[in-house]
Amino acid sequence: MSAASEARPQVLVTEVGPRDGLQNEKAAVPTEAKVRFVDALVAAGVRQIETTSFVNPKRVPAMADAADVFALLPRRPGVRYVALVPNLKGYERARAAGCDAIALFTAASEGFARANINMTIEQSLAGFRDIAKAAAADGVSMRGYVSTVFACPYDGPTAPDQVLKVTEALLDLGCYEVSLGDTIGVGTPTDTHRLLGILLRYLPSRMLALHFHDTWGMAVANVVAGLEDGLRSFDASAGGLGGCPYAPSASGNLATEDLVYLLDHLGYDTGIDLDALVSAGDVISPFLDHPLPGRVHQAVQSQRARRAQLAATEAS
Amino acid sequence: MSAASEARPQVLVTEVGPRDGLQNEKAAVPTEAKVRFVDALVAAGVRQIETTSFVNPKRVPAMADAADVFALLPRRPGVRYVALVPNLKGYERARAAGCDAIALFTAASEGFARANINMTIEQSLAGFRDIAKAAAADGVSMRGYVSTVFACPYDGPTAPDQVLKVTEALLDLGCYEVSLGDTIGVGTPTDTHRLLGILLRYLPSRMLALHFHDTWGMAVANVVAGLEDGLRSFDASAGGLGGCPYAPSASGNLATEDLVYLLDHLGYDTGIDLDALVSAGDVISPFLDHPLPGRVHQAVQSQRARRAQLAATEAS
Repeated sequence: MSAASEARPQVLVTEVGPRDGLQNEKAAVPTEAKVRFVDALVAAGVRQIETTSFVNPKRVPAMADAADVFALLPRRPGVRYVALVPNLKGYERARAAGCDAIALFTAASEGFARANINMTIEQSLAGFRDIAKAAAADGVSMRGYVSTVFACPYDGPTAPDQVLKVTEALLDLGCYEVSLGDTIGVGTPTDTHRLLGILLRYLPSRMLALHFHDTWGMAVANVVAGLEDGLRSFDASAGGLGGCPYAPSASGNLATEDLVYLLDHLGYDTGIDLDALVSAGDVISPFLDHPLPGRVHQAVQSQRARRAQLAATEAS
Repeated sequence: MSAASEARPQVLVTEVGPRDGLQNEKAAVPTEAKVRFVDALVAAGVRQIETTSFVNPKRVPAMADAADVFALLPRRPGVRYVALVPNLKGYERARAAGCDAIALFTAASEGFARANINMTIEQSLAGFRDIAKAAAADGVSMRGYVSTVFACPYDGPTAPDQVLKVTEALLDLGCYEVSLGDTIGVGTPTDTHRLLGILLRYLPSRMLALHFHDTWGMAVANVVAGLEDGLRSFDASAGGLGGCPYAPSASGNLATEDLVYLLDHLGYDTGIDLDALVSAGDVISPFLDHPLPGRVHQAVQSQRARRAQLAATEAS
């Protein structure tokens, strides 16, 4: 890290491509490719990464190889390899695989909790209490996720007080950070300021992260709003993985390259090398049934193609 | 317009899809489809629209039918149908076609002016003086465009003072508004604030518009920055037309739907109906060799597809 970058304020970028991204892709990706993908992201400078998910393999076949991913993964120092666990059984599988950082996922709206995890919010939090107890004893760190923080596809707009309540519950369980997810990507900077205006009355900004989806094109503007309100932790998915804009089921994850490009130019230090990040996307791209949709990813690829063409012309 | 919308501050959206968009698409579009596209955009509420370009048909075959477009176009009251004219000959063709609003295009960097219009900036301004004289006599209104306001693909970063100089020259010629273009889409909110911080010392905000490209995913965040600095006029292209993210030559126009979605939710009144705007994109989409890349366009299309599927299921 250069002297210049040390002087800039740091922002933590949490890479969610290998889990949130791949789980929402149709293509089956070989375990070995997932491992190379995670390691390429870490080599690019990622320091917190949602690696896989210890969910029921029958319900989520794409994540059935979670234990193998952990077994094969080189563990680099200073990197937090997070795995999502839905229940105590998942926690035990994650522990057996050598995982020491887990993510707990619930929602701010009952409709989404019911549809996504087949529980009430309170039931999900009750289940997390057993996991939290075991995690505390095992020295495992926990990251919390609250989805549908602005609106829910089933229940409509979400009350900020409800987000506050669920976030506080996750922090009370011992989560070091709670990531607030705009699951359907409908929020605008106004929504972000309104939500954080309420949450930051009660919670310190360093315990909150923002997880935006770009479904309606607002993710980057929402990150700027979050930065203005003092947040310094954001989730994103390499190349926009999991958010294929061509498919009707587009989830539209914010692309990590777009986030890093923004943060670089606003004067923040992410520790991530943008060029290496784009190359990490190329590790996973051949296994998908579509190009990676991230705009910066595509812009850098275009630049590279033009330079290669130019070099070929000059050489001939 | 409802009473509620009258109370909201107004923002002028200039639709550039039929000219800036189509000119950057490979597909040949029939004149009749262009006319239907323009009229559908106007029906959606667009009040200023870059309709076509009276450039040399040999250099830009996609715009060879400019006079026919104007001849066939229904002219709705309260709408400014702008045509780009590069020189006095183009101006005379535009006038003969019945055009009463023109756009003058130059750059803030010599490298781009040379590559794009094959002149120095001063030569382009000198040419505009003859056009401006004729336009004043004819009662034709003029809109100015300054491209490469943040950086140039040939000359690197652009000095804000240079943007100021060219903008002032266009206003001195009698332009009612100058649109500041981030032609290669590299700017971030920091760049936008820096540029406007200088320009607004000398120029009133109501004479400036912003024209962002989304090549690096920053366009929406830049619009927010422009709004914060008091600007109320923005250019965009329906569906992101002209900015195909799959092609290496992606220009990446900000999609009008993304802009309108943002403005609606930030409490501004654009007079544009988002749903009708998406439908206007569908008029031109069948003539392209790729789906429209705009995020909101795709999100609305997905919603419509899901609703149609649901309705079909319920009916069966």
